[in-house]
Amino acid sequence: MKGLAMLKIGSIGWIEKEKPAAGPMDAIVRPLAVAPCTSDVHTVWEGAIGERSELILGHEALGEVVEVGNLVRDFKPGDKVIVPAITPDWHTVASQLGFSQHDSGMLGGWKFSNTKDGVFGEFFHVNQADGNLAHLPDGVAIEDAVMLSDMIPTGFHGANNAEVAYGDTVAVIGIGPVGLMAVAGTNMRGAGRIFAVGSRQVCVDAAKFYGATDVLSYKDGAIEKQILELNRGQVDKVIIAGGDMETFEQALAIVRPGGIISNVNYLGAGDYFKVDRVGWGFGMSHIKYVGGLMPGGRQNMEYLARLLKYGKLDVKPLLTHRYKGFDKIEEALGLMKNKPRDLIKPVVTM
Amino acid sequence: MKGLAMLKIGSIGWIEKEKPAAGPMDAIVRPLAVAPCTSDVHTVWEGAIGERSELILGHEALGEVVEVGNLVRDFKPGDKVIVPAITPDWHTVASQLGFSQHDSGMLGGWKFSNTKDGVFGEFFHVNQADGNLAHLPDGVAIEDAVMLSDMIPTGFHGANNAEVAYGDTVAVIGIGPVGLMAVAGTNMRGAGRIFAVGSRQVCVDAAKFYGATDVLSYKDGAIEKQILELNRGQVDKVIIAGGDMETFEQALAIVRPGGIISNVNYLGAGDYFKVDRVGWGFGMSHIKYVGGLMPGGRQNMEYLARLLKYGKLDVKPLLTHRYKGFDKIEEALGLMKNKPRDLIKPVVTM
Amino acid sequence: MKGLAMLKIGSIGWIEKEKPAAGPMDAIVRPLAVAPCTSDVHTVWEGAIGERSELILGHEALGEVVEVGNLVRDFKPGDKVIVPAITPDWHTVASQLGFSQHDSGMLGGWKFSNTKDGVFGEFFHVNQADGNLAHLPDGVAIEDAVMLSDMIPTGFHGANNAEVAYGDTVAVIGIGPVGLMAVAGTNMRGAGRIFAVGSRQVCVDAAKFYGATDVLSYKDGAIEKQILELNRGQVDKVIIAGGDMETFEQALAIVRPGGIISNVNYLGAGDYFKVDRVGWGFGMSHIKYVGGLMPGGRQNMEYLARLLKYGKLDVKPLLTHRYKGFDKIEEALGLMKNKPRDLIKPVVTM
Amino acid sequence: MKGLAMLKIGSIGWIEKEKPAAGPMDAIVRPLAVAPCTSDVHTVWEGAIGERSELILGHEALGEVVEVGNLVRDFKPGDKVIVPAITPDWHTVASQLGFSQHDSGMLGGWKFSNTKDGVFGEFFHVNQADGNLAHLPDGVAIEDAVMLSDMIPTGFHGANNAEVAYGDTVAVIGIGPVGLMAVAGTNMRGAGRIFAVGSRQVCVDAAKFYGATDVLSYKDGAIEKQILELNRGQVDKVIIAGGDMETFEQALAIVRPGGIISNVNYLGAGDYFKVDRVGWGFGMSHIKYVGGLMPGGRQNMEYLARLLKYGKLDVKPLLTHRYKGFDKIEEALGLMKNKPRDLIKPVVTM
Repeated sequence: MKGLAMLKIGSIGWIEKEKPAAGPMDAIVRPLAVAPCTSDVHTVWEGAIGERSELILGHEALGEVVEVGNLVRDFKPGDKVIVPAITPDWHTVASQLGFSQHDSGMLGGWKFSNTKDGVFGEFFHVNQADGNLAHLPDGVAIEDAVMLSDMIPTGFHGANNAEVAYGDTVAVIGIGPVGLMAVAGTNMRGAGRIFAVGSRQVCVDAAKFYGATDVLSYKDGAIEKQILELNRGQVDKVIIAGGDMETFEQALAIVRPGGIISNVNYLGAGDYFKVDRVGWGFGMSHIKYVGGLMPGGRQNMEYLARLLKYGKLDVKPLLTHRYKGFDKIEEALGLMKNKPRDLIKPVVTM
Repeated sequence: MKGLAMLKIGSIGWIEKEKPAAGPMDAIVRPLAVAPCTSDVHTVWEGAIGERSELILGHEALGEVVEVGNLVRDFKPGDKVIVPAITPDWHTVASQLGFSQHDSGMLGGWKFSNTKDGVFGEFFHVNQADGNLAHLPDGVAIEDAVMLSDMIPTGFHGANNAEVAYGDTVAVIGIGPVGLMAVAGTNMRGAGRIFAVGSRQVCVDAAKFYGATDVLSYKDGAIEKQILELNRGQVDKVIIAGGDMETFEQALAIVRPGGIISNVNYLGAGDYFKVDRVGWGFGMSHIKYVGGLMPGGRQNMEYLARLLKYGKLDVKPLLTHRYKGFDKIEEALGLMKNKPRDLIKPVVTM
Repeated sequence: MKGLAMLKIGSIGWIEKEKPAAGPMDAIVRPLAVAPCTSDVHTVWEGAIGERSELILGHEALGEVVEVGNLVRDFKPGDKVIVPAITPDWHTVASQLGFSQHDSGMLGGWKFSNTKDGVFGEFFHVNQADGNLAHLPDGVAIEDAVMLSDMIPTGFHGANNAEVAYGDTVAVIGIGPVGLMAVAGTNMRGAGRIFAVGSRQVCVDAAKFYGATDVLSYKDGAIEKQILELNRGQVDKVIIAGGDMETFEQALAIVRPGGIISNVNYLGAGDYFKVDRVGWGFGMSHIKYVGGLMPGGRQNMEYLARLLKYGKLDVKPLLTHRYKGFDKIEEALGLMKNKPRDLIKPVVTM
Repeated sequence: MKGLAMLKIGSIGWIEKEKPAAGPMDAIVRPLAVAPCTSDVHTVWEGAIGERSELILGHEALGEVVEVGNLVRDFKPGDKVIVPAITPDWHTVASQLGFSQHDSGMLGGWKFSNTKDGVFGEFFHVNQADGNLAHLPDGVAIEDAVMLSDMIPTGFHGANNAEVAYGDTVAVIGIGPVGLMAVAGTNMRGAGRIFAVGSRQVCVDAAKFYGATDVLSYKDGAIEKQILELNRGQVDKVIIAGGDMETFEQALAIVRPGGIISNVNYLGAGDYFKVDRVGWGFGMSHIKYVGGLMPGGRQNMEYLARLLKYGKLDVKPLLTHRYKGFDKIEEALGLMKNKPRDLIKPVVTM
């Protein structure tokens, strides 16, 4: 079969590979729609996760089951399925502790385009299919459903980790597709005032659509200062969905004692971030730092899919660029690499 | 001063009383807008909390401070203030445990029109003003803000106690004003599908406005059956905001193992409800029962008020009947007693 | 192979069955030590879970792996393993929601001696071995480790569900082996004062050993009255580990607003228990009812086993009767049925 | 009245001040027993909280009420009372959010020897007495009860913030009196294996007494290495109760994905600590950082006092040095400054 692969750091190309085989609990899926992710860009052109050779890329897909193992109970060939970017092994101690993302060690639940071939092939392999696939509900468009693989659950995980509560004031730093979903997730947990930080017009518009009450740009001065002034004080929670290591210092400057700094930004560069002794209240501020990979698995997909099915969440404003045809994946990925000003997220249907 | 009082069980009337005096931490407030509550009806005509004599009624008000004690720091005469129905004593062990509603024993935080005169007087007394009042934010209408006293926090407390999570399926039984706010609160915690149970058209319309995906009527058959069919199985959570003791049995019949039955209905009659041994999984189902009086206090008011200020919640659909003038409180209360079919909630501005 | 089976309601006997076979994820285990449970008595002589025919009994065992499926990664023949009474399917939505006990519906995680043959056979089958077995740590006696199958996790689950916190006052009603482990678990979550309710001397002594500060007997008057007097008020939490449907009414009478009633008693008889309207604060008391089957799975076993290994918990006082030899299981079960006054728990080693 | 005061940074001395007066909610208390704290040393000789002039020191005391305001309900002159180091204003939004430690801003709940005179005077002032004092239970020695002011609640808060669960493996870094109480608190939340880090013999012995299973010394090599080897992998939680800014780097090196780093060490020096990008899983590890000032107030004191009253916690091993007489406070404080090898904690009774 054909697939768009990372050949080595800095280089991609179409390769031929053998079609994957399903173990007794597994499924083989054919993609119907996929989306490239900034992570793919990091992986290839920044070598963020190290060298890889002839690894098929991609971890966002909606597909059709073509084969299942003999122990798979709930899926059969022909089923249209939502595929999470994170497909844990559910038999591990870490998974039973509630951290299936780290099933077999740090980030172990992230397998596609990391430790096995991703979804940019004609077929891809899903481990523990009953635990990691979800049926596409009637009435949900396949290109919308691709956003369930990563963008929605990652953004919403940021809001969950921030423990957003009714009426909270929340700052979301970064309003690319994940940040926008963090805004939406923050809004859907009942936040009162939502400061979104970003400047591209297409993202600003989308942030307002998803519930941001104030959209701030770095161009208008230090973000900390803007937020502290507008809010007349510190915010309850900060979600980091963009920026770099210094963003953590901005976050600490604007969050109240007892507040939470929740990171969902893949930190691709830098050695460390700093936690300021005085700003952190000499170690006694109750300001929590937490950051986490999205939860994968079937339950999360099924529950989030309801938001699309019942009209609670509209992902169309995310999908700024649409392609048709398997071979357009390369172009879509290039778009993600070059980030034109009108881009939020491209999607490719087959 | 004048006030509309419960004279004895079954009887109300206007009385003269001395204007209340403020202790060092307290405030005296003049109502600018008030709303009668079904609880007032229970209190007077059903004697739900026992005999009371010449007790001024009412616990939903937006007011203006006219006097403060010398230890009050954040409020001064002339301030427009949100007044929660529940005004706890914040110095008690129960309050520090997180149950200020029960500050000095069961339901002890409920003082207005229960253990002291309520808000249907020309003036009323607020204990621990710094802890129990909140400033009315600019841009929030006073009649809207009255809904912050009880309707919004009670309904939202039901959703909080139900621990509604993204994509949950939730049934809200009863869609009077509290039930409607439970629907809104459920929606604002990210529920996926919301079954609301009720039949009056004005309430059905409001339920849809607040996010109900399915509105069901008892007239179309047993609610349990309707929900189990539509949902193809049990729901994650049930919020009880109406009905009677048998409603708990319906709730158990439709909730999944590990689900939650959250009550915010003031149970005015009946001796007990039943928990079915088999339905409750022989005691091992992890189905939780919880029910609670709304949290009062300043923080809750400030946070919920943001939802109005920033346009996250619109309470106008609740306010079906508006009166002007202090002496119209009696008429508004009568409306609450008689419940015409087009009533959700009356409000009286002065 | 041979096994001690329920022949039909009211009747047990030794039968011959085919040795079970392991699927790719499964293990076949030979018991080294087992214990009968009151549940076995309920199952056979009360027909609590309905009719069963030639079903091998038993769900508490420590064993040795004799065979594993080809996908099992962490266990191999010869390994000594802790076997939880509850062995969930980890691929289900319920499991991913944190309720693996109800993997495929209410109590679905309970398979041994319920929906498949139990551990009182020469061999038994364990589904999803990597997720449901745990290695026996060095230095833990096999008969002690049998208590990890059910007694420890069930009692400790009661304390977890009661959310026992430092200094809490807690009543544990019932001090059979599960109740005793609830006392131990309550003590190991930092309770301040622990009222244990029971009367047999062997249990009273053990309750004190496990941390009860006060042991009360029904013979000295109504338990509610005794506790309210000794405690000068209501307790924070109640754990129900014995009694019947009326025990829930006692529990409500002694728990404070905001408290928790946590059940771990298998409710074998009766139609329902009552929740008193006034006692439950007219639905607004914040008193929570929760009850649940113990969590199974490997993680729980590994973590609880550390308590034995590092001397934090000593189960020897539970093991009042010890037998040697596979065929002594019948006698041990008979003991459980007849409950002599000096019995807490029998154990049989092979 | 007389008091031992900080005259300026680096200098202490006995001064005369006017006896404090009680507002309507307050109490005036005479110390019966006090203890100096390392914080006092930081305050005076390191100027940790900045310059102070003629500020009476001390925040750990057990006392006798000598005067109460006219609104105080539950305390009267002659009552023996536990006095928490942290005495919040319970009327603030932060307190109602559950962060009374930061009532009026970061660390605002810490008033004694910070923003008002401390307990090393002949009398001291307690704000909101009903909310901030607790009655000394019968049978608890006054010198033991002094440990309730700060040492027990601070150490136990570390264990609470670490969310220690049954069977957890936990490292407690630093075993001065707070670290020892963190060990005890960890043990009393059911930890399985507790690694304590420290080297003075008196502390090592106490750590074992309080439940440490392994006590490690820096002298035997890098702590990270020792723990990873002994534990054959990462621990679930780390509590930091000593060390410096680099201790946070050690903590990150030994905690598992999804684990918690809980700080209760007052960070007196250094600009910041580092969070390593890779060690923190590129921002996706779910490793939480949290640190917090102990909760003050009456409820916490009452609940923790039960642990002493009912024999669940014995603080005698902490009290290595005992003095008799008000004027011995200076000597006791000097001891705290000089830290002889046999010191854990001095206490002075009057």
